[in-house]
Amino acid sequence: MALGEFELIDRFFRDRGATRTDVVLGIGDDGALLRPPSGADLVAVSDTLVEGVHFPAGSPAESIGHRSLAVNLSDIAAMGATPRWALLSLTLPRVEEAWLAGFARGFGALARAHGVALVGGDTTRGPMTIGVQVLGAVPAGDGLRRSGGRPGDALFVTGTPGDAAAGLALIMAADGSAAGLRSDAPADALEALRRRFLFPTPRIAEGESLRGLASACIDISDGLVGDLGKLAAASACAAVLDVDALPRSAALAAVTPEAALRSMLDGGDDYELLLAVPPAQVARVASMPGLTRIGELRDASTAARVTLRRRAADGTLSETPATGAGFDHFAG
Amino acid sequence: MALGEFELIDRFFRDRGATRTDVVLGIGDDGALLRPPSGADLVAVSDTLVEGVHFPAGSPAESIGHRSLAVNLSDIAAMGATPRWALLSLTLPRVEEAWLAGFARGFGALARAHGVALVGGDTTRGPMTIGVQVLGAVPAGDGLRRSGGRPGDALFVTGTPGDAAAGLALIMAADGSAAGLRSDAPADALEALRRRFLFPTPRIAEGESLRGLASACIDISDGLVGDLGKLAAASACAAVLDVDALPRSAALAAVTPEAALRSMLDGGDDYELLLAVPPAQVARVASMPGLTRIGELRDASTAARVTLRRRAADGTLSETPATGAGFDHFAG
Repeated sequence: MALGEFELIDRFFRDRGATRTDVVLGIGDDGALLRPPSGADLVAVSDTLVEGVHFPAGSPAESIGHRSLAVNLSDIAAMGATPRWALLSLTLPRVEEAWLAGFARGFGALARAHGVALVGGDTTRGPMTIGVQVLGAVPAGDGLRRSGGRPGDALFVTGTPGDAAAGLALIMAADGSAAGLRSDAPADALEALRRRFLFPTPRIAEGESLRGLASACIDISDGLVGDLGKLAAASACAAVLDVDALPRSAALAAVTPEAALRSMLDGGDDYELLLAVPPAQVARVASMPGLTRIGELRDASTAARVTLRRRAADGTLSETPATGAGFDHFAG
Repeated sequence: MALGEFELIDRFFRDRGATRTDVVLGIGDDGALLRPPSGADLVAVSDTLVEGVHFPAGSPAESIGHRSLAVNLSDIAAMGATPRWALLSLTLPRVEEAWLAGFARGFGALARAHGVALVGGDTTRGPMTIGVQVLGAVPAGDGLRRSGGRPGDALFVTGTPGDAAAGLALIMAADGSAAGLRSDAPADALEALRRRFLFPTPRIAEGESLRGLASACIDISDGLVGDLGKLAAASACAAVLDVDALPRSAALAAVTPEAALRSMLDGGDDYELLLAVPPAQVARVASMPGLTRIGELRDASTAARVTLRRRAADGTLSETPATGAGFDHFAG
């Protein structure tokens, strides 16, 4: 690299994150020294973004910096934990100072917003690959898992799933001509969806407030139906989604009215939380802002892991497995 | 990928490392839940290996698995810590089961040897990049740093630096014809050097036993002179190396007698520990097996950060800065 590894770290990343008193020794030695809180479990997460796989080549550096941390913070949120420290492994084909400055700005702003100190990592020359690890803490025994759901638990979701996938489709279709996307929609709706992909919001506060209330939790990175399937499987349950209850953003409805449901059910990159809540806690969770009740867990003896349920015009409920056929059946 | 990410993790990496009672929840959720020891500081390290940069393309998968963990354990050792948990971020262009099995074998054997549990990570499709993070623990306040050395402290090194660089040169020169390498040396010497590159030994036990004794410590990944320069700079000292005292392995002497000193001073990838020891602790450290006294720290007011010192045939000591010219002066 044109700049030495250590100059690069110093120049762009030192003091970029939050300042924390539990960092005994940060960037610059063989390792970081961190003082864990007593009575807490640590939560360790790791996610890697590869150019052209997890984000389009040429994405704004600030977005890449933000997303590389956000996807990890979302995993921390899904465990009900509070983030503390991050490590960054940055592999880059070349040193471009403007790119690094943008990356550091995006990463640093999100880190400071959540009180996360950047305590170490490494830089390497190679194909663009951004590995981030975050360590958080949760009161011992209180970590949320995917596996605690039981039949009869209600399902809730944060935010409005589907927005990020539509935003990515808008970004990929540079001329706005992608099938099902209305490029003549209001500019603020288009921009809102793009930003939902470029700058996702990790639901840290929501995850913290769900400790002791949710029986199971997962973050939606691969699509609502797919990740619900994982939560249900880990909980040895089946799940039913009330399609009419899914929270649809006004922007999504404006930009892609025909494909909104498909995006909500199957679109990735949302980084919302999906959770199961026992009956005794439902009223309390339902009163929290930003959460929508969207279905329930039930006995795993039903044929499909995830079932879509909809009320017809005549008031009758119909159910279809959330597989290819069932999915298409409800599309639109 | 032909195999799904989760099948892949399950098949090759679940239960590969050690089993630890402080792992509350391991691979398979959004994050791992880990119970830290009380009264300890955590040590967090991260190192990424890129094919063609950190190891030759086509290296044995078992070696890549071993090295990706070993370079991180070496950083843990340099902090005087005991490793506990590892995360693995594996980016691969394609799934080759034989390769994955070899990688997991190399990674797993070293993890189990050091009691390290593999608690999480992710797998991604892309250019071969292996990111590993290790978390360890050290009694609170006892972590070794690069910055604690003082003028008058003795310098020690573990093992025999220079072997790995010679081993890599042998591997790169497939026909054994590299300048200064005697491919007609005894086969066990050639093999010993190759193995020192392919399967480096992290000095965990040595690092642990140096807690409270060493004033500063660093691992030698970039060459003895270069890393000594970093330790000296962090300690606001200069350093002098006694060239005649450097521990030279029999294998290195047999394979590259002409370039042995260059390899010892400048060769990378050794992952030995280099440490400073206050006068009051020198006798105790000198009695430890596997450590060699090689010089001392002195006041930073001397011109060079690192000076090479040698005794001539007539008994006089000569000193030369460990820069290009000084280096060449002593080569051979």
